Amino acid sequence: MRQIKIGILGLGVVGSGTVRILQENAEAISRRVGAELVVKKIAVRNLAKDRDVAVDPALLTDNPFEVIDDPEIEILAELVGGVDPCHGFLLRAIQSGKNIVTANKELMAKSGHDLLDAAQLAQKDFFLEGSVAGGIPIIAAMKESLAGNNIKEVMGIVNGTTNYILTRMTEEGADFAPTLADAQRLGYAEADPTSDVDGHDAAYKLAILSSLAFNSTVNEEKVPRQGIRHIQARDIAVARDLGYKIKLIASAQCHPDGSMQARVHPALLPNKHPLASVNDVFNAVLVRGDAVGDVMFYGRGAGSLPTGSAVVGDLIACARNIVSNATGRVGCTCYLSRPMLPSEQAQSKFYVRLHALDKPKVLASIANVYGDFDVSIESVVQRALPGDEAEIVWVTHKSREHHLLGALDVISRLPAVSKVHNWIRVEE
Amino acid sequence: MRQIKIGILGLGVVGSGTVRILQENAEAISRRVGAELVVKKIAVRNLAKDRDVAVDPALLTDNPFEVIDDPEIEILAELVGGVDPCHGFLLRAIQSGKNIVTANKELMAKSGHDLLDAAQLAQKDFFLEGSVAGGIPIIAAMKESLAGNNIKEVMGIVNGTTNYILTRMTEEGADFAPTLADAQRLGYAEADPTSDVDGHDAAYKLAILSSLAFNSTVNEEKVPRQGIRHIQARDIAVARDLGYKIKLIASAQCHPDGSMQARVHPALLPNKHPLASVNDVFNAVLVRGDAVGDVMFYGRGAGSLPTGSAVVGDLIACARNIVSNATGRVGCTCYLSRPMLPSEQAQSKFYVRLHALDKPKVLASIANVYGDFDVSIESVVQRALPGDEAEIVWVTHKSREHHLLGALDVISRLPAVSKVHNWIRVEE
Repeated sequence: MRQIKIGILGLGVVGSGTVRILQENAEAISRRVGAELVVKKIAVRNLAKDRDVAVDPALLTDNPFEVIDDPEIEILAELVGGVDPCHGFLLRAIQSGKNIVTANKELMAKSGHDLLDAAQLAQKDFFLEGSVAGGIPIIAAMKESLAGNNIKEVMGIVNGTTNYILTRMTEEGADFAPTLADAQRLGYAEADPTSDVDGHDAAYKLAILSSLAFNSTVNEEKVPRQGIRHIQARDIAVARDLGYKIKLIASAQCHPDGSMQARVHPALLPNKHPLASVNDVFNAVLVRGDAVGDVMFYGRGAGSLPTGSAVVGDLIACARNIVSNATGRVGCTCYLSRPMLPSEQAQSKFYVRLHALDKPKVLASIANVYGDFDVSIESVVQRALPGDEAEIVWVTHKSREHHLLGALDVISRLPAVSKVHNWIRVEE
Repeated sequence: MRQIKIGILGLGVVGSGTVRILQENAEAISRRVGAELVVKKIAVRNLAKDRDVAVDPALLTDNPFEVIDDPEIEILAELVGGVDPCHGFLLRAIQSGKNIVTANKELMAKSGHDLLDAAQLAQKDFFLEGSVAGGIPIIAAMKESLAGNNIKEVMGIVNGTTNYILTRMTEEGADFAPTLADAQRLGYAEADPTSDVDGHDAAYKLAILSSLAFNSTVNEEKVPRQGIRHIQARDIAVARDLGYKIKLIASAQCHPDGSMQARVHPALLPNKHPLASVNDVFNAVLVRGDAVGDVMFYGRGAGSLPTGSAVVGDLIACARNIVSNATGRVGCTCYLSRPMLPSEQAQSKFYVRLHALDKPKVLASIANVYGDFDVSIESVVQRALPGDEAEIVWVTHKSREHHLLGALDVISRLPAVSKVHNWIRVEE
């Protein structure tokens, strides 16, 4: 049986999962591909480090160029992460005739387009399923199975850490800071949680998903992001009473005029929304196509074996193309250049929670300000607090973000208003 | 730009959705494929019939061989349904060098294997995404993206009609017969509902899904099926009180000894189960892989445009293979021949609802019979009825079906038992 030689950069969480799957399911994979997938070399930073998978030490090298420049290696799997030095490594590998599989979301979000172009020019494969939502096959679905659709919207829970924190806060009534500390202790959040809790990780993934969905490169720097640090236990409780769950949502729309919009933000989702019941570290992505309607993909968004599953799926697809002499079969699909709608133009419903004096006419005075800024109100719930204050929760009709922010700026300075505690988007 | 000629058999619900998508999204599809997909001929039964889509009458023929035998046509889309005469049509088309796309679940479940073999022998493509779960890309996911996994279980809600009926029964507390009549009036159920409500449609789809999942042909005749006619409003209400939803489930397992099991049956699903919140006509399929863990795919399981989306996705995949000279890139993946475990060997938890005299020792006498048949009890709830009877609901631990049925046979003949109303599987 024909052998296809694979080189791997990185033997961390994803790398060791990938190697383990290739070892344990070797026979089935060979049967399915019609060729044997052989790992020839693995570049690591530290040769002495203990690994989660048993690997012949002779395969390891601490010189990445021994992998990148090996002429026998037909597929290079980049499982290191980060832009530098991976970008240069992959360009060099493509130019020397290799097919690429990567799970590097930051690299793909920041400079995926020129790597895909280079691969297409060289008629080589470039697969990236592992870069978004772990083992969930969302990228292949959009590039292939759903390719008959014009996709109008993509919306997902794509960061497991924040979903775990919000789920725990929801189930336990806990606040953000102690839940984050607990998640860090349990290994669900990193020591520096910035990339997850402030929405950067989700923004990388959304840039990739929306580029694929709308056939136009979305620059991750242009994706506004808001994290979950400001979400309070009280917001989650109030949302529950109103019939909503709070989730960190990555969402992007393509409008009939051809423009795009993309944004990462916490949102109130109605309990019946398909994403509302996605809990713990699970991820899910909802795609809205003009023909297929809503389809949702759900699964583990991270981890050694789930992400390894995506990487091995890509290796198999690439190996099948090699066997069929068809590498480069599907190239970059960003053939359009759509304008990105500025964030101020975004419309949505909003939830606002504030404290104000519990006196006649206070509600009316606040409502008047909303009216001045063209924000109309769908519902309001007032609840007396101990003392002379009340908590007032508003849900608006669809409004522009800058109108809402203008109104809240005035409202927060009304003498009767002690504090605007929070405003959060509401999805329908 | 290169043109790829397509021939279509059938211009019904799926055919007209397919043609509409090809028309409306023509430009995007050409850009994505690098070739123009041109419908050259469509065979229909009745040339005079009004169609849901505007088609040049010159494309229509009532002679299928004008399509099958046209040497310019590179891809044949079979959207007729049923085994005969489609089986012969497709064999003839393959032998004359055509690639095949089909949405025919009955044909694929009954004789998919020899068609796939014929296509492989001819190095032609054979795609069947539209045959299961409408627009949900579950077949491509199992053949490609998840191909690094050994799949241990596949479980789904794959029949929209029964899911619609059960959802309505759940929401309205209604019984089966009036809900079916309503579904027929609304067009969600056929005049002869047998194929849907007795589980045959789901069994076809499960035969296809499990063959793909376990790499071994599953004969649909060997898939035991139980429909939903016997589900009563009271069962649904009791299940709700216990924390369950009742759904028609198609499920198949591959055991560590290599044997398979497949079955269509109504089941109690815990409210937290990912399939429990799949409502109305929606379908969902859960796949359990050794690497990826649980992944779920959700969407519209039927309809003109959703199923058309799957067919067009297959046409695009095939066209890309034609452009790359790589038809036959992925052949039949049923390279094993696994034994099928007989249904009596199946183990599961069971729900039993019966009426009995509300007297001392009745509960104990029934419990003793379970014990005699090696069925152990997880929970029991007794509720007094008007008169001198009680309703008793049992949930068993995992037991073999023939043990349970043996026990119920004895229990139903106990003098104190007036009627065993129902027994239903319970999933965990």
